[in-house]
Amino acid sequence: MAFFSDLMSTLFERRPSAPAGASQRPVTELCEALLSSQGEVSGVRLARDILSHYRAMPAENRRAFFDYLAQSLDLDPNAVIEAAKRYGETHAPGDLARLSREAEPRRQELFRRLNQAPGATETLVRMRLDLLRLLPEAPGLGVIDTDFQHLFASWFNRGFLVLRHIDWRTPANILEKIIEYEAVHAINDWHDLQRRLRPEDRRCFAFFHPAMPEEPLIFVEVALCKGIPGSVQSLLAEERELETGFDTAVFYSISNCQEGLRGISFGNSLIKQVVEEVKRDLPQITCFVTLSPIPGLARWLKDQSNPEAATLLAANDPAALHPLAEDLRRLTAEYLLNAKRPDGLPADPVARFHLGNGAILHQVHALADVSANGLRQSRTAMVNYLYDPEKVEQNNESFVTRRKVAASKQVQALIVPRNTTGRKK
Amino acid sequence: MAFFSDLMSTLFERRPSAPAGASQRPVTELCEALLSSQGEVSGVRLARDILSHYRAMPAENRRAFFDYLAQSLDLDPNAVIEAAKRYGETHAPGDLARLSREAEPRRQELFRRLNQAPGATETLVRMRLDLLRLLPEAPGLGVIDTDFQHLFASWFNRGFLVLRHIDWRTPANILEKIIEYEAVHAINDWHDLQRRLRPEDRRCFAFFHPAMPEEPLIFVEVALCKGIPGSVQSLLAEERELETGFDTAVFYSISNCQEGLRGISFGNSLIKQVVEEVKRDLPQITCFVTLSPIPGLARWLKDQSNPEAATLLAANDPAALHPLAEDLRRLTAEYLLNAKRPDGLPADPVARFHLGNGAILHQVHALADVSANGLRQSRTAMVNYLYDPEKVEQNNESFVTRRKVAASKQVQALIVPRNTTGRKK
Amino acid sequence: MAFFSDLMSTLFERRPSAPAGASQRPVTELCEALLSSQGEVSGVRLARDILSHYRAMPAENRRAFFDYLAQSLDLDPNAVIEAAKRYGETHAPGDLARLSREAEPRRQELFRRLNQAPGATETLVRMRLDLLRLLPEAPGLGVIDTDFQHLFASWFNRGFLVLRHIDWRTPANILEKIIEYEAVHAINDWHDLQRRLRPEDRRCFAFFHPAMPEEPLIFVEVALCKGIPGSVQSLLAEERELETGFDTAVFYSISNCQEGLRGISFGNSLIKQVVEEVKRDLPQITCFVTLSPIPGLARWLKDQSNPEAATLLAANDPAALHPLAEDLRRLTAEYLLNAKRPDGLPADPVARFHLGNGAILHQVHALADVSANGLRQSRTAMVNYLYDPEKVEQNNESFVTRRKVAASKQVQALIVPRNTTGRKK
Amino acid sequence: MAFFSDLMSTLFERRPSAPAGASQRPVTELCEALLSSQGEVSGVRLARDILSHYRAMPAENRRAFFDYLAQSLDLDPNAVIEAAKRYGETHAPGDLARLSREAEPRRQELFRRLNQAPGATETLVRMRLDLLRLLPEAPGLGVIDTDFQHLFASWFNRGFLVLRHIDWRTPANILEKIIEYEAVHAINDWHDLQRRLRPEDRRCFAFFHPAMPEEPLIFVEVALCKGIPGSVQSLLAEERELETGFDTAVFYSISNCQEGLRGISFGNSLIKQVVEEVKRDLPQITCFVTLSPIPGLARWLKDQSNPEAATLLAANDPAALHPLAEDLRRLTAEYLLNAKRPDGLPADPVARFHLGNGAILHQVHALADVSANGLRQSRTAMVNYLYDPEKVEQNNESFVTRRKVAASKQVQALIVPRNTTGRKK
Repeated sequence: MAFFSDLMSTLFERRPSAPAGASQRPVTELCEALLSSQGEVSGVRLARDILSHYRAMPAENRRAFFDYLAQSLDLDPNAVIEAAKRYGETHAPGDLARLSREAEPRRQELFRRLNQAPGATETLVRMRLDLLRLLPEAPGLGVIDTDFQHLFASWFNRGFLVLRHIDWRTPANILEKIIEYEAVHAINDWHDLQRRLRPEDRRCFAFFHPAMPEEPLIFVEVALCKGIPGSVQSLLAEERELETGFDTAVFYSISNCQEGLRGISFGNSLIKQVVEEVKRDLPQITCFVTLSPIPGLARWLKDQSNPEAATLLAANDPAALHPLAEDLRRLTAEYLLNAKRPDGLPADPVARFHLGNGAILHQVHALADVSANGLRQSRTAMVNYLYDPEKVEQNNESFVTRRKVAASKQVQALIVPRNTTGRKK
Repeated sequence: MAFFSDLMSTLFERRPSAPAGASQRPVTELCEALLSSQGEVSGVRLARDILSHYRAMPAENRRAFFDYLAQSLDLDPNAVIEAAKRYGETHAPGDLARLSREAEPRRQELFRRLNQAPGATETLVRMRLDLLRLLPEAPGLGVIDTDFQHLFASWFNRGFLVLRHIDWRTPANILEKIIEYEAVHAINDWHDLQRRLRPEDRRCFAFFHPAMPEEPLIFVEVALCKGIPGSVQSLLAEERELETGFDTAVFYSISNCQEGLRGISFGNSLIKQVVEEVKRDLPQITCFVTLSPIPGLARWLKDQSNPEAATLLAANDPAALHPLAEDLRRLTAEYLLNAKRPDGLPADPVARFHLGNGAILHQVHALADVSANGLRQSRTAMVNYLYDPEKVEQNNESFVTRRKVAASKQVQALIVPRNTTGRKK
Repeated sequence: MAFFSDLMSTLFERRPSAPAGASQRPVTELCEALLSSQGEVSGVRLARDILSHYRAMPAENRRAFFDYLAQSLDLDPNAVIEAAKRYGETHAPGDLARLSREAEPRRQELFRRLNQAPGATETLVRMRLDLLRLLPEAPGLGVIDTDFQHLFASWFNRGFLVLRHIDWRTPANILEKIIEYEAVHAINDWHDLQRRLRPEDRRCFAFFHPAMPEEPLIFVEVALCKGIPGSVQSLLAEERELETGFDTAVFYSISNCQEGLRGISFGNSLIKQVVEEVKRDLPQITCFVTLSPIPGLARWLKDQSNPEAATLLAANDPAALHPLAEDLRRLTAEYLLNAKRPDGLPADPVARFHLGNGAILHQVHALADVSANGLRQSRTAMVNYLYDPEKVEQNNESFVTRRKVAASKQVQALIVPRNTTGRKK
Repeated sequence: MAFFSDLMSTLFERRPSAPAGASQRPVTELCEALLSSQGEVSGVRLARDILSHYRAMPAENRRAFFDYLAQSLDLDPNAVIEAAKRYGETHAPGDLARLSREAEPRRQELFRRLNQAPGATETLVRMRLDLLRLLPEAPGLGVIDTDFQHLFASWFNRGFLVLRHIDWRTPANILEKIIEYEAVHAINDWHDLQRRLRPEDRRCFAFFHPAMPEEPLIFVEVALCKGIPGSVQSLLAEERELETGFDTAVFYSISNCQEGLRGISFGNSLIKQVVEEVKRDLPQITCFVTLSPIPGLARWLKDQSNPEAATLLAANDPAALHPLAEDLRRLTAEYLLNAKRPDGLPADPVARFHLGNGAILHQVHALADVSANGLRQSRTAMVNYLYDPEKVEQNNESFVTRRKVAASKQVQALIVPRNTTGRKK
């Protein structure tokens, strides 16, 4: 096993070093040289030079560089048309190859050749992030993003990802990034991190890519519990008693780490694999749920005309929400079950993610996140999505094909009475 | 370091396991299901089923499967033409994305999705090998190969390859493959292998890909010597004395391992990286040469009308070649320097490889490979190609752009006298 | 985990290198210098020099070296007596320290200081082996062995041993030693080894010591079976069908590797730990047995006066033993149950080992090892010792305190009828 | 390599787990059972129980436990005397073995057997620490310490220690201990730690023992510099410029980690090995020095009657010491060169350590540690000890045999002028 795992070390040891005498030629000239080089003899050096140029570039030069990529390295539609016509007639492999070549902007070949340099993958991911940030003001550069997406979908294919257990024995430089990338319930410092990783009832898992071994792609934090929890503050309480008899694994935080990989989705694979991992190590765990935020709830409440919504929005602190808990739960259930986007999918992004993975809406809680952020975005409400390994495929199927939001009886019951008494809608 | 290297273990541990109840549905139906599945929830299972179906398929079914891939999952030229026209008008990112999608046969998406399953990369490489073997009789299937090449060039990008030192401490299952894949000077058994790996004056390096950690892609065997050797038998002699004062690293055998990756070239990267590796570990080594076979020599001699060639071809054993050594060296030099393919590149494939990497023709030896194979293919002649790290880029440039075969003075001298005086000095 | 496991690499990388200019001083002078050196500054160099001297010594010099160790580095009994008297009076810690010092031959301190050098532990173990071979002719050197035993018992304390799974992915240099050290059923070559390691129903485990990471100390080969096997040839048959539904782990070969560690016992720890390991990985395995040779049986039969024994001894091949199987099983049971050494323990060494570990005599087989060796030492008979994790401690207790040989009813029944009725059933 | 490094994992994975049903028998009874057990079948369980009892013991019970060890498990001086007499007569190996046995308190065998349990070594080291803390009030328990020292010197033999590079990629649980154990220049928090480990001009190395893989034994922090530095604050300055052209490695902090291993010295081995490590990785580094505190200086100044000493002691802050720098340097040199203990060794403990390792006194600095602690213990003075690999053995020899304090000309010059001008003494 060890031999195979050591495979990585070579990649790793060859991180970008200070390029002794980086070329002074303009970066576009270097790109042309790289694209026209035959044989790879000088390719690595050119790739390294270009990337090191790029990293040192001031913002305005980056814009010029992207303009060059978008304009000078695009495909030629007429050549594509001609090649497609020809292939339509012959269906010959050689003509398909030619069509493939013509239909691929030269940028893709540039990116592939750049990727030969040590540490290149990470830089290319950051390059796309720079691009994404420019897009609002320069939408035409979107053509570059099309190529990034195409390449990254191939390079970051799930088959190449590696799941790693993150704990207090993980190298500090990785843990530092867990602190930095946590996007749901902020980790304040190393002591806070320790509380998330060290106790026996905590787990953390992340996906990595072999070519970026120091950069987690996505990670999930897991709490082992007895029963399904309804409050994230008690889940994370510093002084909490360590329970025994765990039967439930709670995914209470999932964070994407690489903005430069936006749109390349890892989340569903991650949860699925973590469920398997936990089942194998802890066979006594039989229930897999999330304790999830509801980022769109407050916004939706604002658009409602009913007085309960207004009252909920008016509450200034958790205490004020206490007597309104029933209303909050009811309206939350209504939001999650019935609020839709134009395409018929749930309005709430977290709901779309978990339901799309085959989870069901299991339970809704008021006063579950009493932090300032929890109050702001969802009036303290949170929700459990339940992953039943036996049913995820079927749930996913119904969700994708029929837009059906699977929900437990409890959650359905929250909104039913209203329908029968006719007091609503 | 260790953490990062351990990244691989997860991939590795999840090798294909016996699929409990593999689906009984026809494989093409499974492919359609995989291609149409939204979300990846069932994707891994479908991918695993398809690959396990494929592995168990009798040859005739494979042919049918490839026919399906070629015909049913092709692109639609008219859709490409339409998308190309539209993009030609708008140059909008969305239209480029559509064009990219239309110009890519659905096979590629199928292969990417298949690759989600554990161990899939290896199976896909073997699938291409099966395909390559079918091509002579079914050239139309070549359209599938176009897609394989496109994907593999992306997946096996040099930036993802890992160089590993192979020695007597390497796991046996890897060593077993070194024995199996050695293509130049056969390794007879484990004792022979030991002689290639264990002595202080031997080194071996291989490239691996993280997703196929038990399969070397290409490897090179190196002998450390004092001076440049001119006989492979004395280099490999079982009883040889261990020299001291090494100053030369001899690449005496380079073997590609994966026929399914034909056309995805690793060799030049490998040599370049090994040179760097050896220089770092053994700064006293200053000379890097090959001791290479000349596979095309005997064939070329047959086509020559001069009597020396005929005499050389008539020699039945090395002893008979002894008195002809000078002629052999001269004609070898002539072959390597002057015999060309229609495209102007050297006729000899090994020469093309090393000269294309920036090496020069350094020395020519008679009676250098007296094995049956050496006698047959090159009348015992061998050649040293020299890699001068300072000059490889420049040599490569001249070779690629001007078809120039760089050669040492000694080698040039071998043919000059004959031209001027009509006989050897 | 990986960090901790990497701890070893440093030790390992610093294997003995060719000592540039090893001292020309006599080795005894170097030993005195090492013993008198204060501070460790020169200690490592001296230790390295002494060990490298030792390794290069011709046999006769070794004898002289051992004489020096035995005579010049012994303790002084009078000084011990004086120190003991003083401690008897004062019971002061300082006086105990002095007594400890005086009661320890200077050899021990020498060995400890020698052990500072890279690779020293291995050399010291080999030094003891050299000593053991000299003992028959020079019994007085036995005083040195007393010190070796004392030190090695401390250094090779079970708490420092590491259990490793050995399989086809194990480094070749370790596997080579498995072939070499196999002492029960010889491994012919690498293909034979592969048959012992690679199939799904085979396991192998070894103990290592961190300071000798390339040298297994002891290893056990395990076959997974359905039911308890009664023939080692069918167990090892090359063409055997792979069974499913394993419920039994058979320890069919246990080999000590280091003669230089004779008397430092690892075997019982090994079996106990392997049982735990197998139980964890394969919970369906519930039965743990050996298939063991009976090295003392033929010798014992020779000493018996009954005609059955004579007939058994006269049989020239397995076929001839076929009709005698019942007699063979009965006499084997009698031998194992009743033949004793003067100290009341079983005469058979393998029986002593397993019964001493808490196993019971479970079943006796005729025609179980039909190899030449099996025929010679036990007329083809073999025996299963059964390890019932629940009962090993209790069995061990009875065996150690009351010399009780625990046996199954079947085995007991083999000899009972004969006693009561004078003839078989 | 990886296989061998993985050896450790087994040890590691078997850390003490919650003992399911730890025995309720008194711990002394368990000790007797462990000592009298034959075979190791129940030994591990007993050892685990005893250690888990010990860990849970309140302080008063520990005292009783140590009393038991001291009194009930001591040796019998009369039996030693008798065995020594006998061996004096016979010089027979068997009699030496008996003497060895009798001269060893049974405690040692108990500790060896305890060490079979997982994680035992760490607990035994902590047990000795508990003992050391009791010694002032119960000096008679010192007999136990004699045994601990004897065993630990054998177990923690330098040949078993492993040097590890500590950096920002080291597991967090190890780094946490570096923060905790730093004894010279306190590390405030994780950010401070990062500044010590991450920059290119910083290194850190630690010794580990395979049986305590998560506990550093001793570590040294190294700064790479251009020239020899004279101020620890500028060395550690947060905002410092990164220099290039390093030629000097500065050992600016060495910390022993395990009080329970007091007296088992690792420091000199560590420095020697780190020098080799740095030389190999960074051949441009040619100068190896410390920047060391002078813990005994202020105390010594108090005992001096000269007015300069009094003035130095009266200075309240670094600023006040500025004009006194020359006096401070001179008196520091005098202290380090001339102040001795009764045994003739330097009065300063840090001086004893480095001079004893073969370093020389290279330079003395005023205002080199302006922290509160630096002011208190040495009036801001610090000293460079220089390790010249070529001369350490010879320096060590002179120091050990002739008590000679090797010093550079500059340091010697600091005190010479006074002698020549006659103003002093």
